[in-house]
Amino acid sequence: MRLVIAVVQDKDSGRLAAELVKRGYRATKLASTGGFLKAGNTTFLIGVDDERVNDVVECIHRSCRAREQVVTPFAPVGNVDAEVPVPISVQVGGATVFVLDVERFEHF
Amino acid sequence: MRLVIAVVQDKDSGRLAAELVKRGYRATKLASTGGFLKAGNTTFLIGVDDERVNDVVECIHRSCRAREQVVTPFAPVGNVDAEVPVPISVQVGGATVFVLDVERFEHF
Amino acid sequence: MRLVIAVVQDKDSGRLAAELVKRGYRATKLASTGGFLKAGNTTFLIGVDDERVNDVVECIHRSCRAREQVVTPFAPVGNVDAEVPVPISVQVGGATVFVLDVERFEHF
Ligand code: NI
Ligand code: NI
Ligand code: NI
Repeated sequence: MRLVIAVVQDKDSGRLAAELVKRGYRATKLASTGGFLKAGNTTFLIGVDDERVNDVVECIHRSCRAREQVVTPFAPVGNVDAEVPVPISVQVGGATVFVLDVERFEHF
Repeated sequence: MRLVIAVVQDKDSGRLAAELVKRGYRATKLASTGGFLKAGNTTFLIGVDDERVNDVVECIHRSCRAREQVVTPFAPVGNVDAEVPVPISVQVGGATVFVLDVERFEHF
Repeated sequence: MRLVIAVVQDKDSGRLAAELVKRGYRATKLASTGGFLKAGNTTFLIGVDDERVNDVVECIHRSCRAREQVVTPFAPVGNVDAEVPVPISVQVGGATVFVLDVERFEHF
């Protein structure tokens, strides 16, 4: 048995949760306080049999990997001389994953 | 030293906390966001000497084990033709417990 | 790779966060529910290379160690016969630190 601790962005946590449920994993989601280092992240605790660790890590990778996203900044309100906003590319997503050995596991 | 991570239902967390204090254990309670997989759970972190792990696990078992509870559903309001609600048995409680080895422990 | 789990008082968590950022560590902060055993604490998860564990533990010690603080209790409002409040010394701070071995680490 392993304990997978995954820190992901809030915006990816719904997709990850759905993916884990679909594949039969049990997870617990811890609230992060936000605004610190990585604003708005969520920490998943996932208990998993040794031979399924790779599959869980792949789930996390699929659901949360860092990727570019094109966003168009808002034009300043009431500023008629403002240039037309140009779409820019920002990086979103990403995950930090720790896999720990579990010495003993109980489920009551 | 071991770190016991226990995920329990909110309704059992007060009883578990009281039991741990009574037996001299120190614990930290992490907020779970609720509504995910197991709605309304709480995660305890409990640092404990190796030889007391069994005792802590027994505390958790006593305080949180899955059990049947008889509840009587509410009758629909204003529905005069509704049948008299029949008490039903639902399962409550339960705990998921991970015991991890601690390589180093400091208390300042 | 190691995972450092540090439980500190809320009042020290800003200082610890700033210190960790300054020294280039990445951390995640988990909300503790407060009011349980140690009211108002915060749990840091810090992933760190083996050879920097000592440095992280020293960061935590510097930012959060238990110390005496002199406080002056408020005089009861409207109690003209109350004695002048005498400053008293209370203990604040402190940290509980667990260092766990990480079997596998991924950062997407
Ligand atoms: Ni049982
Ligand atoms: Ni000291
Ligand atoms: Ni990738």
